[in-house]
Amino acid sequence: MEPWNHTATQILENIRSGNLTVEQYASSLLERIKQRDDDVKAWAYLDPKAVLEQARKLDQVPKDQRGPLHGLPVGIKDIILTKGKTTTTEFAASFTGPATRNAHSTAHTPGGSSAGSAAAVADFQIPVALGSQTVGSIVRPAAFNGIYGFKPTWGAVTREGQKFCAPTVDTIGFFSRSVSDFETLADVFALHDDEKSTFEDIKGSKFAVCGTSKWDLAGDGTIAAMDKAAELLKAHGAEVEELDLGPDFDQVIDWHLTLVRLEGATSLWPEYYQDKDKLDPVLAKGVEEKHKISRKAQLDAYDGLAALRPRFDKMADDYVAVLVPSVFDEAPEGLGNTGSPVFAATWTALHTPVVNIPGFRGKSNLPVGVSLVSARLRDRHLLKVSEAVGRIFEAEGGWNQ
Amino acid sequence: MEPWNHTATQILENIRSGNLTVEQYASSLLERIKQRDDDVKAWAYLDPKAVLEQARKLDQVPKDQRGPLHGLPVGIKDIILTKGKTTTTEFAASFTGPATRNAHSTAHTPGGSSAGSAAAVADFQIPVALGSQTVGSIVRPAAFNGIYGFKPTWGAVTREGQKFCAPTVDTIGFFSRSVSDFETLADVFALHDDEKSTFEDIKGSKFAVCGTSKWDLAGDGTIAAMDKAAELLKAHGAEVEELDLGPDFDQVIDWHLTLVRLEGATSLWPEYYQDKDKLDPVLAKGVEEKHKISRKAQLDAYDGLAALRPRFDKMADDYVAVLVPSVFDEAPEGLGNTGSPVFAATWTALHTPVVNIPGFRGKSNLPVGVSLVSARLRDRHLLKVSEAVGRIFEAEGGWNQ
Repeated sequence: MEPWNHTATQILENIRSGNLTVEQYASSLLERIKQRDDDVKAWAYLDPKAVLEQARKLDQVPKDQRGPLHGLPVGIKDIILTKGKTTTTEFAASFTGPATRNAHSTAHTPGGSSAGSAAAVADFQIPVALGSQTVGSIVRPAAFNGIYGFKPTWGAVTREGQKFCAPTVDTIGFFSRSVSDFETLADVFALHDDEKSTFEDIKGSKFAVCGTSKWDLAGDGTIAAMDKAAELLKAHGAEVEELDLGPDFDQVIDWHLTLVRLEGATSLWPEYYQDKDKLDPVLAKGVEEKHKISRKAQLDAYDGLAALRPRFDKMADDYVAVLVPSVFDEAPEGLGNTGSPVFAATWTALHTPVVNIPGFRGKSNLPVGVSLVSARLRDRHLLKVSEAVGRIFEAEGGWNQ
Repeated sequence: MEPWNHTATQILENIRSGNLTVEQYASSLLERIKQRDDDVKAWAYLDPKAVLEQARKLDQVPKDQRGPLHGLPVGIKDIILTKGKTTTTEFAASFTGPATRNAHSTAHTPGGSSAGSAAAVADFQIPVALGSQTVGSIVRPAAFNGIYGFKPTWGAVTREGQKFCAPTVDTIGFFSRSVSDFETLADVFALHDDEKSTFEDIKGSKFAVCGTSKWDLAGDGTIAAMDKAAELLKAHGAEVEELDLGPDFDQVIDWHLTLVRLEGATSLWPEYYQDKDKLDPVLAKGVEEKHKISRKAQLDAYDGLAALRPRFDKMADDYVAVLVPSVFDEAPEGLGNTGSPVFAATWTALHTPVVNIPGFRGKSNLPVGVSLVSARLRDRHLLKVSEAVGRIFEAEGGWNQ
């Protein structure tokens, strides 16, 4: 097995034990990228020479001075200040894709807005990558590319250096091919639950299934994946209950859209003000029409969502996790549109942690993911559950990375 | 009168009409800074040569290509990415002052954390400056230096490029020596109320006075200023009522402190992680003790404050504005401590706009300010009221810029 084939956890062990140098690993990834970049086009900027130079320097660092991620390359979405970057839709706000393709089909979108991060991880070009989610920009590309995507609780990870879209919901999150990689990142980002998770085993655990009020929009791939997911959980001894959020939650998607529009217009105001002709016309129009949405609607959205968050937490705490759809279906064909983020929006708006779990397959043989969510600030618990669930879905769901 | 003596509004008119070049104005300010910098020490970084070069370039720009702030120098607090900067306490999070002194006494603190921005504006070294407020970092230094300070509604101005402290309350705001300068900045930052303010005259308007549950902490200077302020409003024909927020609001300060501590620790985590020895020990300790505050306390704070915000809006809407204390008293002596932000904290936590209005004097002959607040997203209305109120307080309050 080539080094590029490994997860971050495996690579870090190999570097730590001296089985692999940082330079060897970086060379292996660069080789993989070279082979695949014409097809996948996941990189907005990459300087192989600089990567190798840095890798050689890292190999010189004495072992006792190395940090927990020593030698681990991370793909960084091109809305975060840094040097080597993965592609995004414009300001992570537009739905018109970059040139990036789905890791499993050059004819299909990788989803957005964290297009490059998801495609690069799914295509084994990088072990982990950073993305951001304002509506569904982590969950959707993770589901479309058949990998894990983790959006932590809103506010748990600093968003400094990130170009804002809608700061009351924007969340930095992660892509990987294994939940244990998220555990490593969660350590480094100091994610911490109040209580250690008591979850031990799928067997005997109680899960909820929640399609939300938008369930009618689910396509065949997602309907089949959700059915199969519930079936597998039951087959492994879990209790699975239907969770109806009730009519008070019907406004979540509209409220979320209102504040994304208004806050997005505030975030893009400097770019619009300086040179509006350089902005995607759809985004420019959003800035121009900002004042068509009333401030009262904005406050209703803030206050309405804030009141629902603790109510959902309370419901979620009756279960080890809540199983929810990630996307309508497989990745749509073509690169023009990155697909609908509607199913992910509810959890972004409610500030909960979410993990997209791969393991299912749609009619076009492309991956379909489903998500697990929990109450806010139970991120470590959710990872623990996701690891166990992911093992089952990957082994028996019908689609394997 | 020297150019440095003017407000931003006056300067912009003079530059527009051709009575003053940008270079002449910049030279005048640099001369003023040269004379006063040893006493006030408001600048973290200033490159006079670069300023003059830029000024000369601006003078070459054809009139029809000039923006609304053409030629206006702005002091930028040193937690925002830029080139010429005013001082701050460390990461705007510490209470240990920089070397900056109060514009009216070298023996007194200018307040913090936006120390340099407030002192430079009060000392006529710059017409307007940017600051940020997480607890009381705009209102307090504005009150201590006898100038106007404006913290807009949370979220109305983008915070991009700002080092975060507690992002759910951090707000970028402004210092000036006149409310009309805020109007100009509010235009540029696209602040917009749902309805045009119907406020016309102090006479016949109804104001509230609200000392909050912390009123016992007010010192003589603030007690006298609040009394005098209410008296002046009444003398000019306003109705003035006492507003009691009720016991549900008693937790606001504690909740606010909880989230500032927890979010502050998240914001400073990267600095701590990279090199904790470079951090102020108080801030480092805050990061280390992050996990001593439970996540449940954090969610109670989020959800509790969110529920109170619309309730305060509703109360405030019965008045043209609510008069509240800005600070305990005059600026404390010495530079070691920037003073208490407690009186400003309530309005930061409730996300309302606030304007500190100068006009009063304490026992040591230093300025004391009071504040006006309104419901969220009524920023333009609040500016309109503040202009009329400021005119009276400055003329008859006993202290004049």
